[in-house]
Amino acid sequence: MDILNRYKQVRKLTEAICAPLQTEDYVVQPVVDCSPPKWHIGHTTWFFETFILKPYFMGYQEYNTDYNFVFNSYYESVGNRVIRTDRGNLSRPTVAEIYRYREYVDEAMERFLCAEPPTGVKELLILGLNHEEQHQELLYTDIKYILGHNPLFPAYDKNYASPKTEQVEGDEFIPMAEGIYEIGFTGDGFCFDNELNRHKVYLNTYAISPQLVTNEEYLEFMNSGGYHDFRHWHAEGWDWVNKNKIQSPLYWHIINNEWYNYTFHGLGPIKPDDPVCHISYYEAYAYASYKGMRLPTEFEWEAASSKFKWGKSWEWTESAYLPYPGFAKASGAIGEYNGKFMVNQKVLRGASEVTSPGHSRNTYRNFFAPYLQWQFTGIRLAK
Amino acid sequence: MDILNRYKQVRKLTEAICAPLQTEDYVVQPVVDCSPPKWHIGHTTWFFETFILKPYFMGYQEYNTDYNFVFNSYYESVGNRVIRTDRGNLSRPTVAEIYRYREYVDEAMERFLCAEPPTGVKELLILGLNHEEQHQELLYTDIKYILGHNPLFPAYDKNYASPKTEQVEGDEFIPMAEGIYEIGFTGDGFCFDNELNRHKVYLNTYAISPQLVTNEEYLEFMNSGGYHDFRHWHAEGWDWVNKNKIQSPLYWHIINNEWYNYTFHGLGPIKPDDPVCHISYYEAYAYASYKGMRLPTEFEWEAASSKFKWGKSWEWTESAYLPYPGFAKASGAIGEYNGKFMVNQKVLRGASEVTSPGHSRNTYRNFFAPYLQWQFTGIRLAK
Amino acid sequence: MDILNRYKQVRKLTEAICAPLQTEDYVVQPVVDCSPPKWHIGHTTWFFETFILKPYFMGYQEYNTDYNFVFNSYYESVGNRVIRTDRGNLSRPTVAEIYRYREYVDEAMERFLCAEPPTGVKELLILGLNHEEQHQELLYTDIKYILGHNPLFPAYDKNYASPKTEQVEGDEFIPMAEGIYEIGFTGDGFCFDNELNRHKVYLNTYAISPQLVTNEEYLEFMNSGGYHDFRHWHAEGWDWVNKNKIQSPLYWHIINNEWYNYTFHGLGPIKPDDPVCHISYYEAYAYASYKGMRLPTEFEWEAASSKFKWGKSWEWTESAYLPYPGFAKASGAIGEYNGKFMVNQKVLRGASEVTSPGHSRNTYRNFFAPYLQWQFTGIRLAK
Amino acid sequence: MDILNRYKQVRKLTEAICAPLQTEDYVVQPVVDCSPPKWHIGHTTWFFETFILKPYFMGYQEYNTDYNFVFNSYYESVGNRVIRTDRGNLSRPTVAEIYRYREYVDEAMERFLCAEPPTGVKELLILGLNHEEQHQELLYTDIKYILGHNPLFPAYDKNYASPKTEQVEGDEFIPMAEGIYEIGFTGDGFCFDNELNRHKVYLNTYAISPQLVTNEEYLEFMNSGGYHDFRHWHAEGWDWVNKNKIQSPLYWHIINNEWYNYTFHGLGPIKPDDPVCHISYYEAYAYASYKGMRLPTEFEWEAASSKFKWGKSWEWTESAYLPYPGFAKASGAIGEYNGKFMVNQKVLRGASEVTSPGHSRNTYRNFFAPYLQWQFTGIRLAK
Repeated sequence: MDILNRYKQVRKLTEAICAPLQTEDYVVQPVVDCSPPKWHIGHTTWFFETFILKPYFMGYQEYNTDYNFVFNSYYESVGNRVIRTDRGNLSRPTVAEIYRYREYVDEAMERFLCAEPPTGVKELLILGLNHEEQHQELLYTDIKYILGHNPLFPAYDKNYASPKTEQVEGDEFIPMAEGIYEIGFTGDGFCFDNELNRHKVYLNTYAISPQLVTNEEYLEFMNSGGYHDFRHWHAEGWDWVNKNKIQSPLYWHIINNEWYNYTFHGLGPIKPDDPVCHISYYEAYAYASYKGMRLPTEFEWEAASSKFKWGKSWEWTESAYLPYPGFAKASGAIGEYNGKFMVNQKVLRGASEVTSPGHSRNTYRNFFAPYLQWQFTGIRLAK
Repeated sequence: MDILNRYKQVRKLTEAICAPLQTEDYVVQPVVDCSPPKWHIGHTTWFFETFILKPYFMGYQEYNTDYNFVFNSYYESVGNRVIRTDRGNLSRPTVAEIYRYREYVDEAMERFLCAEPPTGVKELLILGLNHEEQHQELLYTDIKYILGHNPLFPAYDKNYASPKTEQVEGDEFIPMAEGIYEIGFTGDGFCFDNELNRHKVYLNTYAISPQLVTNEEYLEFMNSGGYHDFRHWHAEGWDWVNKNKIQSPLYWHIINNEWYNYTFHGLGPIKPDDPVCHISYYEAYAYASYKGMRLPTEFEWEAASSKFKWGKSWEWTESAYLPYPGFAKASGAIGEYNGKFMVNQKVLRGASEVTSPGHSRNTYRNFFAPYLQWQFTGIRLAK
Repeated sequence: MDILNRYKQVRKLTEAICAPLQTEDYVVQPVVDCSPPKWHIGHTTWFFETFILKPYFMGYQEYNTDYNFVFNSYYESVGNRVIRTDRGNLSRPTVAEIYRYREYVDEAMERFLCAEPPTGVKELLILGLNHEEQHQELLYTDIKYILGHNPLFPAYDKNYASPKTEQVEGDEFIPMAEGIYEIGFTGDGFCFDNELNRHKVYLNTYAISPQLVTNEEYLEFMNSGGYHDFRHWHAEGWDWVNKNKIQSPLYWHIINNEWYNYTFHGLGPIKPDDPVCHISYYEAYAYASYKGMRLPTEFEWEAASSKFKWGKSWEWTESAYLPYPGFAKASGAIGEYNGKFMVNQKVLRGASEVTSPGHSRNTYRNFFAPYLQWQFTGIRLAK
Repeated sequence: MDILNRYKQVRKLTEAICAPLQTEDYVVQPVVDCSPPKWHIGHTTWFFETFILKPYFMGYQEYNTDYNFVFNSYYESVGNRVIRTDRGNLSRPTVAEIYRYREYVDEAMERFLCAEPPTGVKELLILGLNHEEQHQELLYTDIKYILGHNPLFPAYDKNYASPKTEQVEGDEFIPMAEGIYEIGFTGDGFCFDNELNRHKVYLNTYAISPQLVTNEEYLEFMNSGGYHDFRHWHAEGWDWVNKNKIQSPLYWHIINNEWYNYTFHGLGPIKPDDPVCHISYYEAYAYASYKGMRLPTEFEWEAASSKFKWGKSWEWTESAYLPYPGFAKASGAIGEYNGKFMVNQKVLRGASEVTSPGHSRNTYRNFFAPYLQWQFTGIRLAK
């Protein structure tokens, strides 16, 4: 597929994700970790305008100079940013105005992409598309948070269907031999800077589960007092549980002694066989400890990833998010993409039901702070 | 005017105030003191449904039982309320749905008011209309906050015209004689419970200004270092100034060494002759102290109120908001209206450019916490 | 008694209050409202050094220039102060060093007072002695807090005896006639600036209790669910109760279903006939509301004060702490004494068991923020 | 040396460290990360009483049952603990009482250790001694914080001499070959559970500095605007710098345009050749980034540690604090020692001038949160 078609396809998908929303749903920001959907729509547009059209498309007329202030995210080198907690306070630009901005930029991009882009720009463009795919996932995450925290529990889309993934048979742990493994991206396609350099690691013998932990298994942990037994928890996790009175995964509600959860279809009873989802790293660790096992490191995960099916939910690993040997930041604003977050975050591997098709791969490294439940996160055990 | 027409007129005015808004403007809540406009629209409707239709209109069908949860404000006796900081996180019910709710209740009210309402209900109804007028004022206040804190500084309405008030000539202070004065409401019309009982107070000789302090006069205070001289401030006010880095009234911005402020027309240069507006009690007190004078008490204000023109901005008084002799709370939810706020608040007297016509009177007592700048507040000096 | 003897007597009493303390007790500051006892010892000394010896005693050699930084309290005009929360972090100067400083200043003061002090200085000196008496009361308050919040509940002094006050017979409310009353200090002796000017107020008919509310009566309020019924509380008080999980006066503990409280003798069972003590204004108001009565205003209290016995505990009034007509701040640092606290505080009248003998009078105005329980505060009802 | 003598020696050293303190210095807790010295004295005593004397010494009489409540630290399984922020509010037990407790326990321990302790107890005892050595280091750290944050800047001990460490010549980076290295403790002596299992890691080619970064070099970073250039910082570090207005290492003060720092001798000019000390991980990372290099991982550090001298200050590594392969917690309270802190912490390697002699080793893993400056921390570069 040529780059222009790829561009159109990615941009359309973003809009399709937002299609079931009411105007009001685009505006709110219930917690600081979320962004309003309209901000995602504007920010992904601003990315192409700022990093491609303004520097490389001769004669391009910036849409609105104030928008840099509104739609910048964390790119310190591009100017002051609206502090993140303020995003949910901005009623203007309106949703319609932002879609006009999006249309304006898309039109310019399409004209720009009629000709072969200069060297280096194609790489930027592909980065921009991968960036937008990350925001597609965040859109689903934020939309779920916005609707799932509304006291009316509105459905996102009654016809929403999560992508099918191949069913794995059996739950025998997969044994892995001690030795040197190669870790990190290799090949011709796109990867993020944090997947490089490919390098050797030495792994001890281990075994990894072919299955994700299910709701039913997690309920067992809950019912046996898992949230009340400090021995399973990190000191920091224990404080988090008590301070926030956490008793279950996010979106779970107990009604007449039965557990329900909010999904894109609205509020309904827990499905016992589904993988447990929306748990923090602290909870994943505590569950593993309760089972007398542990989470895999990201290297163990990657080394074994061809031997099991993955893609239902992002899987917490025991690994901290750190640079690989030889990791180098790009210069300029693009260099702020990954490196500056490499402290106090945990690596997630795999992909989730809301990851855009083709976006992830077995060397892909996602990362979040250990207390966050709002992602589509699950548990795979190792020992 | 009969009560049904009065009802229609008040309800229409609320909608007229919101007419210039975009859907998105209805949704946000930039600070905890504000409420989203759509909440005002729903809450004033909920008031009539809860206190009139449900108890008194036989056969009335409640619109949506979840709405009590969403639109209750501070009425503890009517059930759990959505905590106030959450109002800005609710995208649903949508603006259109809330207007449908409003229409439904209005229709029922109109049917209900075709017959003469039973004893006691008329009083409730008039309270409800005065309550809605208070929310009309808050709507203006909150709308100004929402638009005036947006980095694009959108105008509310280019054609907005503040109501004309009679110009007063001269600035000679009005002398008032020592003696006993009667304070509090008297007459047949409506008043709030906090305006009663009418009672005697003894006042010493004093003098009160016929004019409000102007922007130009206030700028003099600013330019002479008023915000940096602790001697003018209460200890608590001084902490407030320093902690919040306050340097001017709310909505003032310095651009190229000139002061601008945000009004309903957008951002523009300060008008020197306008009364200074959007200042906290701390600032009003500090300004008076800088001038070697003081603020009037609410009794001094009321006793002299026939001798000057008022109605441009709410005027801070030196008085704390306390019950009058013989003050009695109504029983039930209505009793929560005023009494429970009678601690740590300052009384404001007068009215402002956004007070609904006919809503205020010279015995009317408004009240706010002393740190708030977001109301249309001004300064009248006494000595 | 001549001024030198008065000086010696006041200074000795401060030291006598601290005599039962261990060195460690002088150092800590368990909450921001408290100060470490060693700070009181130093601060009262600093007051005489700064306002009398340095300006008026020719040839006086300042003890240590750093001490101004350490022992200043809220006197902005005298230089930077150590922020209040930091006082409990200062291990130096040591207790012994501070007593040496105290001795040094006392010796200088005694030499200075051999001669007749210049005009104006005697007034300052008497202010300084009254100031130290206020700190004597605070010392008791802070010492009780420090020891009463220690898990070992150490007694302050097993032989501590609270001063006897005359017993009042009967609980018939004292009726007071409507009319004009004179309020504020009159006479030759010392008073604080906030007791002036003496002025007229007009009071309606009222009645005031000759007795303070007892522990037994307060327990009745507690047992009938007083802390769980929002109708008795200010909105702000209700938030305070819930946020801080308040269930009783300060220092009360339930042990095996019986209520104990901490006193200067250690932990022991509640005495039913003692006046209830260590309650906030919010609680005093809620109790009065539960009884269908109210708190007196400070004017009602003063007008009736000759008709009942007082002096067991400071009594909350309904009045906000505001300036009297004609109130004027002294110029310079002394002017910061009272006026700058006249916002968001409630007036207390009377005196408590730890008020220094002769310090209070029936025009004396104490004041605290409405949420504070740590003073020796009680309730007298009016209606 | 036999175990009894080892016990006496360690216990004496703790007391020697505290010898220069005034009673008041034992009491305060200026920040939540510090503990009052008297708490360290009591807690290390409580450790031996709780884990050795009570379970293993027949007939031992507990000194005071309340002390478990006061001197427990983070051992959830041993009962409720005083919340950490409260430690500085406890004036009782007094310093003298705690030393009596210490003496009582020491005497019992000496009687207990006359006989050969039962199996398993010797291990516990050695853990207890290593635990006390860790508190010796913390004592120095906390004492420095307490005195160094006092506005009088008192010296700890004018004659304090930091231990001599061998001087290294040259600053050529030490080259290290790619390949498999063995990491973790091996041998007969004591190690903590977090140093096990010894396991293989694969390292790429790297080079490591033989020298620590000096004050002079760090000043260069400061003078070239290092604290104001976001490009060198993690996003989280950049927020930390701005929120806390960090401009230099802890204990540095600029006086008349020259940099001073507080040491155990009091306040004095920076010594340019000393290793920079009291910096956070964020600062160490930013400095390395500014130099175009990076921090070593803990594995790189350990693999090269025989090739340079270390022991002047704890050295931040790039590694997150995570379990080694095969790491297993001990059961019971001892199992809470290390594992529960393995999230959001960075590993430090080496030792500092206040580490007890013989306490550290090249497999020793210290760990702190990345924002802490209060340890004796420094920088070694790698590339």
